[in-house]
Amino acid sequence: MSDLIAVDWGTSSLRGARLDAVGSVLEEKSAPLGILNVPNGDFAAVFASLFSDWMKPAGTVCLISGMAGSRQGWVEAPYVACPAGPEELKRHLYWIEPGRIAIVPGLSDEQEEVPDVMRGEEVQIFGAMRLAGRTEGLFVLPGTHSKWATVQGGRVTGFRTCMTGEFYGLLSQHSILARTLEADAPLDEAVFLRGVARAGNGEGLLHNAFGVRALALFGQLSPARSASYLSGLLIGEELRTQELPSGREVIAIGAPALTARYALALGQRGVKVHTFGAEATWAGVRALLT
Amino acid sequence: MSDLIAVDWGTSSLRGARLDAVGSVLEEKSAPLGILNVPNGDFAAVFASLFSDWMKPAGTVCLISGMAGSRQGWVEAPYVACPAGPEELKRHLYWIEPGRIAIVPGLSDEQEEVPDVMRGEEVQIFGAMRLAGRTEGLFVLPGTHSKWATVQGGRVTGFRTCMTGEFYGLLSQHSILARTLEADAPLDEAVFLRGVARAGNGEGLLHNAFGVRALALFGQLSPARSASYLSGLLIGEELRTQELPSGREVIAIGAPALTARYALALGQRGVKVHTFGAEATWAGVRALLT
Repeated sequence: MSDLIAVDWGTSSLRGARLDAVGSVLEEKSAPLGILNVPNGDFAAVFASLFSDWMKPAGTVCLISGMAGSRQGWVEAPYVACPAGPEELKRHLYWIEPGRIAIVPGLSDEQEEVPDVMRGEEVQIFGAMRLAGRTEGLFVLPGTHSKWATVQGGRVTGFRTCMTGEFYGLLSQHSILARTLEADAPLDEAVFLRGVARAGNGEGLLHNAFGVRALALFGQLSPARSASYLSGLLIGEELRTQELPSGREVIAIGAPALTARYALALGQRGVKVHTFGAEATWAGVRALLT
Repeated sequence: MSDLIAVDWGTSSLRGARLDAVGSVLEEKSAPLGILNVPNGDFAAVFASLFSDWMKPAGTVCLISGMAGSRQGWVEAPYVACPAGPEELKRHLYWIEPGRIAIVPGLSDEQEEVPDVMRGEEVQIFGAMRLAGRTEGLFVLPGTHSKWATVQGGRVTGFRTCMTGEFYGLLSQHSILARTLEADAPLDEAVFLRGVARAGNGEGLLHNAFGVRALALFGQLSPARSASYLSGLLIGEELRTQELPSGREVIAIGAPALTARYALALGQRGVKVHTFGAEATWAGVRALLT
C-alpha cells in the first residue's frame, strides 16, 4: 500500500502526519491554520501549500478529520448516526478528489431527546481501540468540548459532550473569578483534588464556582491555587454525571497535560486510566483504510 | 424623624431614594456610576454631586448598601457573620460621617467549609420581610449572582450564591453558543420551561449547555428560542440544587422581568412566589433606622 496522509483539521489549528504502509509516522507537521483562520476560506490553497509535497507519490491517499468537515469547513460532510464503527465511516467518506483526498464524517448521537455531535474524536477513538486491542469500553476525550463515548462490539454506541474546557476558559478569563485567578499557574494536585471532591457536594456548579471567589476574598485560596481548584471543580462536575465503570478502566485520549488531570480525578474515584495522545489519530486514520 | 436617604451602590450603577418619616419614597434617582465607574475613585465627589441637595436638611441620614462597602468601594465595611438580622447590621454600620452617612455592611456565611458573601441583598431581604410581614421563609434574589437566603426568627440564618446571571452572560456572549443565539430575544415561555425541565435530567450543566449548540445544528432551535432555552437550563440548574419548601411560598426580590422567570420556573415545581422590586431596598434601609 502507498503512503497515507492523515490530517486532523480543527477549529484553531491543524496537524498532519505522513504514515507508511504499517501506520508508522514518517513525518509530522502542524500549522495555526484552523478552519477559522483559512485565508479567504480557500481550503484547497492551504492544503496544497502544506501537503502538496507529501501528496506527490502516485497512489497517495489523504484523509482529513475534524472541523474541516463542518458547515464552516472545506465541505460539509454529514454526520454518521451512531451506533457506528470504522465500517460505517468508510462507507461515508466524503471524497473531495475521488480516491485521493477525503473528509472523514463526524458522528451524531440522535438516540435521545437532544442530539449530540463530534467531529474528529471518532477517528481518535477507533485509533485508540486498535492500539489498545479493545472493542469495548468507556472513552473520554478531554478538551474544549470533552466527549465521553461508549464502545461496544467495535462501534460507538452513544456519546455525550461536556463543555468543560470552554467553561474553564470563560470562568478563568471573563468572569469575576478572573480577578483573583492566575489561569496559567502550574497544577497544584492537592488543591485540584479538593475541587474534584467539592464538585460532588450536591450544591451544583453555579454555587461551587462562586466558592472560588469567596475563598479568595477570605484569603483562603491564592490566585495560583484558584486555577487548580476551579479546574478540579469543573472536571469533578464532569465526572459526577458519568456512569463510571467501577473497577474497570477508562481510556483517555488527548494532550498529556490534560489526560493527566483526568487520571488524577478518576483515580480519586478508584477508576484506572489508559492514556493515548496524537498517535490515536494516526492509528485511527490507518484503521479506516485497512 | 428627619428625611432618610437610601442608596444602593452597586458594581455598575447606583440608585438612590429620598424617604419620608414613614418610609414613603419622595424622590428617586439613578446613575451609571457603579463602584467600577467612579472617576479617580473619588466616591465622596460622586456622592456630593448626586445627593448634596437631598442631604441639606439638618438631621438627614444616608445609609448606603451594596458594593460601595467592598474592598474596591468607598470604604471596606467588614462582613457581619450570619445568623444576623437588622439589629446586628445596625450595630455594625460603618460611619463615614458620624450620624450622617453610613455604609451598611454585607453578610457572610462562614458556617460551612467554603464561605459565602452578600452585599446589598441583606437590606432587600429585611425590607421584604417588613413589607410581607414575615419573620421566616426562603428568599431568592436573582441576578448576576443570585442569592438564596433562609430567614428564621427575623434573621438570615444561612445563604448560598449561584452565578446564574453571570453564566448566562458568559455563555450567550462569549461561548460557542453565542454563534446561534440571540441574547436579547423576548422570552418564549414554553421553550424556557423546556430548559427548566431539562436541567433536572441528571446529566449536568456542562452537558446540557452543549445541547443548545446541538439543537441549533439540527435546526431544532432558532437563535431567538435558544436564548429562552439557555435561560431555562440555567435557572432550572439553580433550582435543582435548592431545598424548595413544598406547598409553601418563596419570596423573590429583584427586577420584574427576572423575578417573573423565577416565578414561572418555581411554578413548574408547584412553588408559589411573592415578588418585590426596588421597594424592598427602601423598606430595608428604613428598617435599619427604626
